Amino acid sequence: MIVVMEPGAKDQQVDHVVKLIEEMGLQTHPIYGTDRTVIAAIGDKRNVDKYPIEQAPGVEKIVPILSPYKRASKELRAEPSTVAVGPAGFPFGSGRVGVIAGPCSVEDRGQLIEVAHAVKEAGAIGLRGGAFKPRTDPYSFRGLGEPGLEILAEAREQTGLAVTTEVMGVAEAELVAKYADLLQIGARNMHNFNLLMAVAQTGKPVLLKRGFSASFDEFLLAAEYILSEGNQQVILCERGIRTHETYVRNTLPLAIVPAVKRRSHLPILVDPSHGTGHAYMVPSMCRAAVAAGADGLIVEVHPDPEHALTDGAQSLTPEVFGETMQEVRRIVEAIGRTL
Amino acid sequence: MIVVMEPGAKDQQVDHVVKLIEEMGLQTHPIYGTDRTVIAAIGDKRNVDKYPIEQAPGVEKIVPILSPYKRASKELRAEPSTVAVGPAGFPFGSGRVGVIAGPCSVEDRGQLIEVAHAVKEAGAIGLRGGAFKPRTDPYSFRGLGEPGLEILAEAREQTGLAVTTEVMGVAEAELVAKYADLLQIGARNMHNFNLLMAVAQTGKPVLLKRGFSASFDEFLLAAEYILSEGNQQVILCERGIRTHETYVRNTLPLAIVPAVKRRSHLPILVDPSHGTGHAYMVPSMCRAAVAAGADGLIVEVHPDPEHALTDGAQSLTPEVFGETMQEVRRIVEAIGRTL
Amino acid sequence: MIVVMEPGAKDQQVDHVVKLIEEMGLQTHPIYGTDRTVIAAIGDKRNVDKYPIEQAPGVEKIVPILSPYKRASKELRAEPSTVAVGPAGFPFGSGRVGVIAGPCSVEDRGQLIEVAHAVKEAGAIGLRGGAFKPRTDPYSFRGLGEPGLEILAEAREQTGLAVTTEVMGVAEAELVAKYADLLQIGARNMHNFNLLMAVAQTGKPVLLKRGFSASFDEFLLAAEYILSEGNQQVILCERGIRTHETYVRNTLPLAIVPAVKRRSHLPILVDPSHGTGHAYMVPSMCRAAVAAGADGLIVEVHPDPEHALTDGAQSLTPEVFGETMQEVRRIVEAIGRTL
Amino acid sequence: MIVVMEPGAKDQQVDHVVKLIEEMGLQTHPIYGTDRTVIAAIGDKRNVDKYPIEQAPGVEKIVPILSPYKRASKELRAEPSTVAVGPAGFPFGSGRVGVIAGPCSVEDRGQLIEVAHAVKEAGAIGLRGGAFKPRTDPYSFRGLGEPGLEILAEAREQTGLAVTTEVMGVAEAELVAKYADLLQIGARNMHNFNLLMAVAQTGKPVLLKRGFSASFDEFLLAAEYILSEGNQQVILCERGIRTHETYVRNTLPLAIVPAVKRRSHLPILVDPSHGTGHAYMVPSMCRAAVAAGADGLIVEVHPDPEHALTDGAQSLTPEVFGETMQEVRRIVEAIGRTL
Repeated sequence: MIVVMEPGAKDQQVDHVVKLIEEMGLQTHPIYGTDRTVIAAIGDKRNVDKYPIEQAPGVEKIVPILSPYKRASKELRAEPSTVAVGPAGFPFGSGRVGVIAGPCSVEDRGQLIEVAHAVKEAGAIGLRGGAFKPRTDPYSFRGLGEPGLEILAEAREQTGLAVTTEVMGVAEAELVAKYADLLQIGARNMHNFNLLMAVAQTGKPVLLKRGFSASFDEFLLAAEYILSEGNQQVILCERGIRTHETYVRNTLPLAIVPAVKRRSHLPILVDPSHGTGHAYMVPSMCRAAVAAGADGLIVEVHPDPEHALTDGAQSLTPEVFGETMQEVRRIVEAIGRTL
Repeated sequence: MIVVMEPGAKDQQVDHVVKLIEEMGLQTHPIYGTDRTVIAAIGDKRNVDKYPIEQAPGVEKIVPILSPYKRASKELRAEPSTVAVGPAGFPFGSGRVGVIAGPCSVEDRGQLIEVAHAVKEAGAIGLRGGAFKPRTDPYSFRGLGEPGLEILAEAREQTGLAVTTEVMGVAEAELVAKYADLLQIGARNMHNFNLLMAVAQTGKPVLLKRGFSASFDEFLLAAEYILSEGNQQVILCERGIRTHETYVRNTLPLAIVPAVKRRSHLPILVDPSHGTGHAYMVPSMCRAAVAAGADGLIVEVHPDPEHALTDGAQSLTPEVFGETMQEVRRIVEAIGRTL
Repeated sequence: MIVVMEPGAKDQQVDHVVKLIEEMGLQTHPIYGTDRTVIAAIGDKRNVDKYPIEQAPGVEKIVPILSPYKRASKELRAEPSTVAVGPAGFPFGSGRVGVIAGPCSVEDRGQLIEVAHAVKEAGAIGLRGGAFKPRTDPYSFRGLGEPGLEILAEAREQTGLAVTTEVMGVAEAELVAKYADLLQIGARNMHNFNLLMAVAQTGKPVLLKRGFSASFDEFLLAAEYILSEGNQQVILCERGIRTHETYVRNTLPLAIVPAVKRRSHLPILVDPSHGTGHAYMVPSMCRAAVAAGADGLIVEVHPDPEHALTDGAQSLTPEVFGETMQEVRRIVEAIGRTL
Repeated sequence: MIVVMEPGAKDQQVDHVVKLIEEMGLQTHPIYGTDRTVIAAIGDKRNVDKYPIEQAPGVEKIVPILSPYKRASKELRAEPSTVAVGPAGFPFGSGRVGVIAGPCSVEDRGQLIEVAHAVKEAGAIGLRGGAFKPRTDPYSFRGLGEPGLEILAEAREQTGLAVTTEVMGVAEAELVAKYADLLQIGARNMHNFNLLMAVAQTGKPVLLKRGFSASFDEFLLAAEYILSEGNQQVILCERGIRTHETYVRNTLPLAIVPAVKRRSHLPILVDPSHGTGHAYMVPSMCRAAVAAGADGLIVEVHPDPEHALTDGAQSLTPEVFGETMQEVRRIVEAIGRTL
């Protein structure tokens, strides 16, 4: 941390700040510049809130230096982590690109089994589908619950696909973990720290979606919550952020892919369905995401999007998904990776 | 809902959309304009996802007409709701302006009791203080838990202040409700629908903070979740949103006050502490919020902000809080209300 | 500036960065922390782009310390600047609160003269009205041009109000300066540096609106452009920013008022008309802005908003403006200032 | 346009709105729904401001239906436009992908000629370089002016590359047009309507960068300004937007590529240098942009980024640019296009 003093800060103000920093267990190193004094605080106390020093007289601002996360960073582990998922142990983060696809919600057995076979044939390695749905609107369809999980498990048996589904509450973490291969933390729950811990404790791989206004550091701190519970199987997932743009439901910031690769060892997937909100944009954003270096995709596919109970506007038909997968495969190969 | 067809959309495309709308139980009313056809859908089916119609051939876009919430809106109740809180039954929404103040976290008995008396004397009617803290960083102080609640209850006995504290998880809702007068849903949990329902079911008044990237409609839909559980005691709270601005921790959009007053019957408070993140801005934003017509404030006050365990940078000292309350009182009176 | 090296950066990488910094004419001061080395660069070279150092091997990031503006900051001038405007020399920045009001565009002589008298009677000290209009849509009404300026000047003669109007292009700066008392730089032109200089060179007071995604530093740097041309009569104006919110046309971040007061000596006005985009919100945001400590307001008033050629949705009628001014006056007095 | 009336709006309020709409020359079509009345306004009056109707009693909101631009839309021209640029007439929009590269600023003859040859060899078809620089900071390097243009022209003679450079002010449009093949409107000037017209009138192809908080419609309306002056040679360019993200200088929203392709006939390029602000992200965003379907790229390349006078942090070295072009070429081919 660097504490920047105001121009003209008095010696006793500097001394007071030095004392506050030292009370935190950090060493201090004042530097007297041409226009102002700055005080460097040396030591690793990431878990202490240093912003109260802003209140000390004569302080202009606090500048953090260390990233607030550690286990999720390359400081701790320089080489990429690999997370094996599903019956076939697909190795996310290994260089192979894995695609998870399926409907937003499990609506009924017929729908899900049909989609599962379709996405498997197109080259997906995972099956998504919600059994417990977070709905902004309290009157909307909220999912089938455990029967939905059973259908997902049946689809896995038929296809070998890794089942990915969202955990909505602490109370359901164990239940979902019984059926699923990859437990999803949804964007709305990225800051739900109780849930992060409950899911971590199942010991299952976790797909952590970025909150739609989460900063980069907050995203990795959410991963840190899971890692700090002893569960190392974290896969990040970018799903778009809130901005002023209205031609999309969310703005998909693909530069997070190289940013994660530079600072963290964790794999990162991209969700172009939520990341745009419009089916017509999804194929181009699938191509872009893998070209950017994402470790995989998670894509909504529905046999009849016009009648989907949830997220119909952004679901691909199996046909369009199949074509998209062919394009994705060619791009993956063009950058020297495999699907 | 209005469905806007693309220019040159064919009759059979229009017919197909008409069919999709009618399947939803809505009546249709096509209008043939100079440049394109639009189809009005008549009826109230707020809980049906209509966006899948975007996928139908020839459709350009869907324009919703009805607000997605109903119980929270003036359609259902034209006059303002009043929510009585605490031992003295302070009536939020009645025209009186109520101020809740206290530390971010309950750190120890001495700290809390001292602050409680100080804010009481300055004119506050409620006491805030966190016993369970949501921390972005897994290594930070997470609150005292139940002993913190006991200290809050003791402070209430001594001062008569209404106790406000956050509920972090479904499992703690009943426990917190035993001690607190007003249960807070934090910004990070505004979309945590399980928690909204659990808190609603305690039957206690709820202070619902806006998520930091929540839209207006999403904010009122979160209130709708609570209202639809039969709990009518909902108080909204604006606490700032994420924007590109960096001289503040959050951008405080006070125009939400007249917007809520126009569309909803629910009271609305403002949190200038989280809404700015810097103590020096809090007094002016307290004044601005009540001038804008807010039904109250919730303000962080700490006896020693430089040493606060959480949110020290945005906490007022009791002295500054006292001065701010005098200014707030004069403004409240200038606009014909009472504190 | 502080250069933060990556963990494990090598000595020769540190040496290379030291060399790059010294080439800029700055002194260096390396600090060896527990986790990484940081290099403080000492000296005032605000005008040198230091970010290329990011490219040097082993560098994690660059942290600027000095604000990029100097003349606009309190470093140069600690007490508030006062800018005298119009025939009566109204002193913006002196503690008195000044209100400028009038239509978005000068539409015809009758409209403008009527509004001028109305706003004068309500207590305004300035008259606004556009003669050259920036229109996002090339097919819209673009203003009356010089005849519009003549009407404004006539209104000044009749009322004594200070005339405020926008300068759209370098070529019109001299012309507008002949007629107006306060030259407005619109939000869309805040980054139009040629225009900033041309307007500065007229020697007239300048009302500088914040660009709708400008950062705090960019806003003050735009002021710095004018100040660095030798024109010290700069009044800042907040008019709302682009965010994800859609119930407003712009989000009005009033915390910029205390932020400007802390870091700059320049006066700051608030424009609640553009700052919200909806007439029904304007009175409460007028109240809030003066309560926050703004030095004045600029408000759109039109005798017949339903038929206004521009910005009708956000214009007050003279009646509503008159009532708002009474409320504003009471708040101004409540905080110990005068209107 | 659709006017949505409040629930319970009275007949005379509906009649008043009908009258206001008919005064605009539009036909009206009221629809009486279950909860409220909406009034459809039929006819094409894109250039009339309809928002004043919001002020009429009983009106809840106005919903526009037609896009505000016409010449830039597919309504006017369904097939893609091709814009031929430079000595070789490279056809942007034809399906071939064109890359423009070069330094942010022309610093001296040696620097520019060296880069020109390097980017030519790597496969670029255009050369970028600023002679007039828009600088947020008034004390920064502002470019060489006309001598910079002469150096660009010399580089074109030696390499055959199309010269692209920014026009900063109306006064320089003709001068720049004498030397350059493609006139750039920078992001800060996207709303500078005088400049749009001046550049349009040169008759040269125009590269129009999106303003950093411009909406989709505002971006296409800026193009409309140029088209409505009779200049059909407009190429759009996405260069990133302002959001809450801080690990990038701008957030690059690649979904604008399919959005433009769906609604407009104009070609669109992507600028991954400004679109991220960090050189290490540029190669992956170049790959992503062409995978998304962009018609080309504009990339900053500098022989010695550590010493670049401007934008050094985001400039690629010629070596990295060369490697990136090989990856870009493979992706272009993978999606069935050519570089």
